Amino acid sequence: MKKFLKAILPAGFKANGISCGLKKSGKLDLALIYSQFPALVSAKFTTSSIMAAPLIVNQKHLKSAKRFQAVLANSGNANCFTGKSGIKDAQSSAGYLARELKIAKNSVLINSTGIIGKRLDVAKIKRGIRKLVLGLSSSGIHRAKMAIMTTDTFAKEVSLSLKIGAKLVHICGIAKGAGMIAPNMATMLCFILTDAAITQAALDKATGAAVDKSFNCISVDGCMSTNDTALVLANAAAGNRVISGGADLASFSQALASICLDLAKMVVTDAEGATKFIQIDVTQAKHPQEAKSVALSIANSVLFKAAVFGQNPNFGRIAAAVGASGYKIKEEKLKIRLGSLKGKRVKLTVSLSRGKAKCTVYTCDLTPEYIKINAAYN
Amino acid sequence: MKKFLKAILPAGFKANGISCGLKKSGKLDLALIYSQFPALVSAKFTTSSIMAAPLIVNQKHLKSAKRFQAVLANSGNANCFTGKSGIKDAQSSAGYLARELKIAKNSVLINSTGIIGKRLDVAKIKRGIRKLVLGLSSSGIHRAKMAIMTTDTFAKEVSLSLKIGAKLVHICGIAKGAGMIAPNMATMLCFILTDAAITQAALDKATGAAVDKSFNCISVDGCMSTNDTALVLANAAAGNRVISGGADLASFSQALASICLDLAKMVVTDAEGATKFIQIDVTQAKHPQEAKSVALSIANSVLFKAAVFGQNPNFGRIAAAVGASGYKIKEEKLKIRLGSLKGKRVKLTVSLSRGKAKCTVYTCDLTPEYIKINAAYN
Repeated sequence: MKKFLKAILPAGFKANGISCGLKKSGKLDLALIYSQFPALVSAKFTTSSIMAAPLIVNQKHLKSAKRFQAVLANSGNANCFTGKSGIKDAQSSAGYLARELKIAKNSVLINSTGIIGKRLDVAKIKRGIRKLVLGLSSSGIHRAKMAIMTTDTFAKEVSLSLKIGAKLVHICGIAKGAGMIAPNMATMLCFILTDAAITQAALDKATGAAVDKSFNCISVDGCMSTNDTALVLANAAAGNRVISGGADLASFSQALASICLDLAKMVVTDAEGATKFIQIDVTQAKHPQEAKSVALSIANSVLFKAAVFGQNPNFGRIAAAVGASGYKIKEEKLKIRLGSLKGKRVKLTVSLSRGKAKCTVYTCDLTPEYIKINAAYN
Repeated sequence: MKKFLKAILPAGFKANGISCGLKKSGKLDLALIYSQFPALVSAKFTTSSIMAAPLIVNQKHLKSAKRFQAVLANSGNANCFTGKSGIKDAQSSAGYLARELKIAKNSVLINSTGIIGKRLDVAKIKRGIRKLVLGLSSSGIHRAKMAIMTTDTFAKEVSLSLKIGAKLVHICGIAKGAGMIAPNMATMLCFILTDAAITQAALDKATGAAVDKSFNCISVDGCMSTNDTALVLANAAAGNRVISGGADLASFSQALASICLDLAKMVVTDAEGATKFIQIDVTQAKHPQEAKSVALSIANSVLFKAAVFGQNPNFGRIAAAVGASGYKIKEEKLKIRLGSLKGKRVKLTVSLSRGKAKCTVYTCDLTPEYIKINAAYN
């Protein structure tokens, strides 16, 4: 397995990113990823009961089609809490792109991120689509990764290659953060592209496991988003023997998990206003759910996060967060080890002395800067 | 019912507050409330599985005794996450006070608030107790209310009188906030004193209802504390006919609820770093639990609270918080009314169009100042 901290498109994929005018700043705000070959898709969406319009449209497409060729994404507007008009807007954007690419409408997946509650300017998107399609290229992923950014300060990207049998298979992922990051998932868009040949069942299994240990284990502010989406497209262009289980699936799953974890950590590193990256290891839990709940209870404690910002080793707040997790954890069994708070990376280990399960969660400190960013964002 | 925004001790109660040296500032840090007549007590504690030592001691006393005469409380140290030594410290402080007052040890209830995880300096408390007892007086409640403050900027106090039959009954409450305020309850100490004659069952019923609609409906930072305590002492000194049900209990319950709600609102008003008091009314919910969960999901949304601080009417974040509450609420049925964000009081109404249940929750904005206070507090 060879890894690169750069997006490198696998065989059969092209991409592009342009500015269509949704962002007042004039920055890139419309991205397209296109697969020459119809690709299988495994998708994970927010668990919020209020889902943004594009997610509702995607769910329909995922039910009616088996393979997909295009991922359209805009930043600057989340097209959420926009009612029936929002759904119509998402559908008509997808339809317009499909005609331009001469593919079926339901082979387009559509994504939005940005402000919630304002109607999307579809005219701008439509005007941008032709340019977007004309400029598709195998290096265009670098413009695409910029076009999905909102308050992100750097683009999140990673690629790797691994051998399946005699063939090299490639996986490439891009993602955007950077606030409203909570389990499960985040205002997070993540697109992962692979040229692997794989069965739908194997792809779903690998995706589920990878997302569970990465995007579902990060929290910036405890706020679950309405737009969270992770899409994994597999177009089989590598011509490898089809991955369906066994050692091949194990290798592919490990590679996909590593891509997801890298991207998830980048999202936390780039969290709004954060000055520190915090890794929380909960060990010796009774069962995995307990480990995860305790870890997230700490990760979402505003008081703990403020203490880390202040480089203030406040064990009491960690204990309080453990106690608030809902599990009957005994104080006298609790072991808390907190690394130095001086540097940019902080490690906390909490042992519960109740069993063998464990979980690692990633979060960041909470800073006055975060409040300032989110007081002004609109 | 006549209300005063001042603590006025009911018949048979005395109080005092002194500085025993726990607070480096030299401010008052040790409070005592004493009832001449053994009083019934109804108590509510934090639901955190990690409880501070004094709460564990109180629970034992509440099991072994039926009536109580003294409430001791220190600020500056929460005596929490202090293990067996912490329990011993709480017990020996209670025992020392009991000997000084010549009452049974288990008729003392003991409370601590302040830093978590540091051992209590019992020697200082013991040295202070004699002075504390000698200075007991019916006006001493004003020193007591000061002695329970931590980061509070003002003392929380309220009193009222009501008629039960021909007799006037008095209720007086004092409380402290001001951070780590979350359902259920808060780093909150609340002592309510009444000279009413009332049965234990009636007192418990009135207390449960009052706490549920007040201290369990406020959230400052979503962080549940280890020390939350609300105690209601009833010493029967008013000589009224014993309240046991019917119209008498209804009147008393209403009065107690009003005392609790006033104190709870004061706690939110004084929240660390807050600039705005927010009332969230969730209406037309399917059942009360749904209304409360939705209201608290909004009240605990860091993003919503930062938006209010920025006077930024971000409806999307409110919708996102509703969606994250776990209930299957439909976007198209949601009605959100947000009052002006300019003033110090903000009112938000969210109608779910699902039924007739409702709930009101009180919270505050989240500010850079809150982070600064809690980054430094240790």
